[in-house]
Amino acid sequence: MLTNMLTLDFIREARERIAPHVHHTPVMSSRAFNAIAGREVWFKCENFQRGGAFKMRGAANRIFALDAQERARGVAAFSSGNHAQAVALAARDAGTRAVIVMPQDAPRAKVEATRGYGAEIVFYDRQRDDREAVARDVAERGGGLVLVPPYDDYHVMAGQGTCVLELLEEVQDLDAIVTPIGGGGLFAGASTVAKGVSAGRIRCFGVEPETGDDTRQSLHAGERMTIPPPPTIADGARVQSPGALTFPFVQKNAEDVLVVSDTELIEALKFLLFRLKILVEPTGALAVAVALFNKLPADVRRVGVVISGGNVDADALARIVKE
Amino acid sequence: MLTNMLTLDFIREARERIAPHVHHTPVMSSRAFNAIAGREVWFKCENFQRGGAFKMRGAANRIFALDAQERARGVAAFSSGNHAQAVALAARDAGTRAVIVMPQDAPRAKVEATRGYGAEIVFYDRQRDDREAVARDVAERGGGLVLVPPYDDYHVMAGQGTCVLELLEEVQDLDAIVTPIGGGGLFAGASTVAKGVSAGRIRCFGVEPETGDDTRQSLHAGERMTIPPPPTIADGARVQSPGALTFPFVQKNAEDVLVVSDTELIEALKFLLFRLKILVEPTGALAVAVALFNKLPADVRRVGVVISGGNVDADALARIVKE
Repeated sequence: MLTNMLTLDFIREARERIAPHVHHTPVMSSRAFNAIAGREVWFKCENFQRGGAFKMRGAANRIFALDAQERARGVAAFSSGNHAQAVALAARDAGTRAVIVMPQDAPRAKVEATRGYGAEIVFYDRQRDDREAVARDVAERGGGLVLVPPYDDYHVMAGQGTCVLELLEEVQDLDAIVTPIGGGGLFAGASTVAKGVSAGRIRCFGVEPETGDDTRQSLHAGERMTIPPPPTIADGARVQSPGALTFPFVQKNAEDVLVVSDTELIEALKFLLFRLKILVEPTGALAVAVALFNKLPADVRRVGVVISGGNVDADALARIVKE
Repeated sequence: MLTNMLTLDFIREARERIAPHVHHTPVMSSRAFNAIAGREVWFKCENFQRGGAFKMRGAANRIFALDAQERARGVAAFSSGNHAQAVALAARDAGTRAVIVMPQDAPRAKVEATRGYGAEIVFYDRQRDDREAVARDVAERGGGLVLVPPYDDYHVMAGQGTCVLELLEEVQDLDAIVTPIGGGGLFAGASTVAKGVSAGRIRCFGVEPETGDDTRQSLHAGERMTIPPPPTIADGARVQSPGALTFPFVQKNAEDVLVVSDTELIEALKFLLFRLKILVEPTGALAVAVALFNKLPADVRRVGVVISGGNVDADALARIVKE
């Protein structure tokens, strides 16, 4: 059974392993938010994580679990988003080499941030090249770099789950947790923790943008479905199909996968910014929007929501706040 | 001696009095910020305070110190800014009436926020009316409402100082604290705490916008000076002269009053927003800009900085982040 690898103990080990390299992020709540949501909501604020997103947890767990020979060679990843920065940062902490493969048209701010963490960047042409083939080529030519996948890896999933381990220690008696779903790594780790510490009692919900609901479709179909590139503002959830290794955890642990519109996402982002005074990226506000727009079952009274990241550039933010 | 009223014990009493009505706000720090600043900096985040600013502390201390008869009558304040929201919120907590006097051209968001907390709003004409006369008239016609001044009041100053009481318990061995100065209430309370708990060792700095340096001029002149309305983006520091009751604390406790440009303020605000993921208003970033742009004496190694508030409207933020 595929889901045997990812256990509560394996995630507890991950926490020990990554503790020196990640922030124990704060949990926030808001009376004003709860009044609108009609339930008690706790936000696990991974926008305050190193690198600006929960991705640091999984990357650090993967890289610090490498053996000495692997660590001597270095790592590679393909990402233009938060995973790239996380791998660069964790590799720097580990004193190892990181090569990040990015599309030529990646936002310059993300390229610079990743390079700023000491990674080498290799560009590819989105139209012409297959990015996984490019990454494999880079890994081989680099003398056997170890690929750090963004979600389809048990160490990565376990690392991501550690944020919910922290949340459930800090807030007692939650009925449910809600996390965004891109490739499904965060949901896999988080739901394994929630089910594991509560003997299955805590209910687990995933959230996707309504135009990018590949995991919801897959859950309903009973198999992994592929959708066209979704046009959503939630760039971390523009994945076209759930991960091969993560999807079994959606099937096993998700009560439902909910969806929110981009308009709802932006409202949630603005509430967090102007009322709670925290900056959250659109993908990071997915689970918050589910609570704000009352999409959870009525008997969910106390809910933990993962805010997955806070990396937004100035131009995008200026557009969003004026909407 | 005027400064006798405001003592460390009086501020400790304030903390007990207001504890149920204010947040114990978090202290944040950033390796990236410290690397640029070249010293260790701790941010006391009053942008996360109820009402979005430290003003709630002083308003709550004043209102909860009213006797039963005063509380039965209610309170009045003149402000279109954070003080208005704080008085409205504290009055609602105390179950008493609040009348807030605002200019007719006050930003609608601020008017609505204040009304949303249950206050009655009375408008005046900025060109034609004297706002203090209007407020006195309102207080009298309201059957003896008690005026809650924004800074020139010992209970208000004591309330504001409680944020530094929290900071100094959480972070040990600070060399210095830095706070913004508008009317001087925050500096008066904060510096009384810092000097009181350290037997005078902790050095205290105030900060003003460079076009609104009435307190700096006054400190150098040895008497309260009045300047023309300053054009700074830091709207909470557009005060034209230091308070009669607060200024003696600047003279007694301030090693210096420093200034920052609006350009520096905006850089500091953007660093806090995009790197620390927290929203701070321009006035709230004054003390942060002093640290970021290295305006403190070189031998200040460990410094506590008060982030005073986070109330920015969407249009203003969109303009700022594009600069």
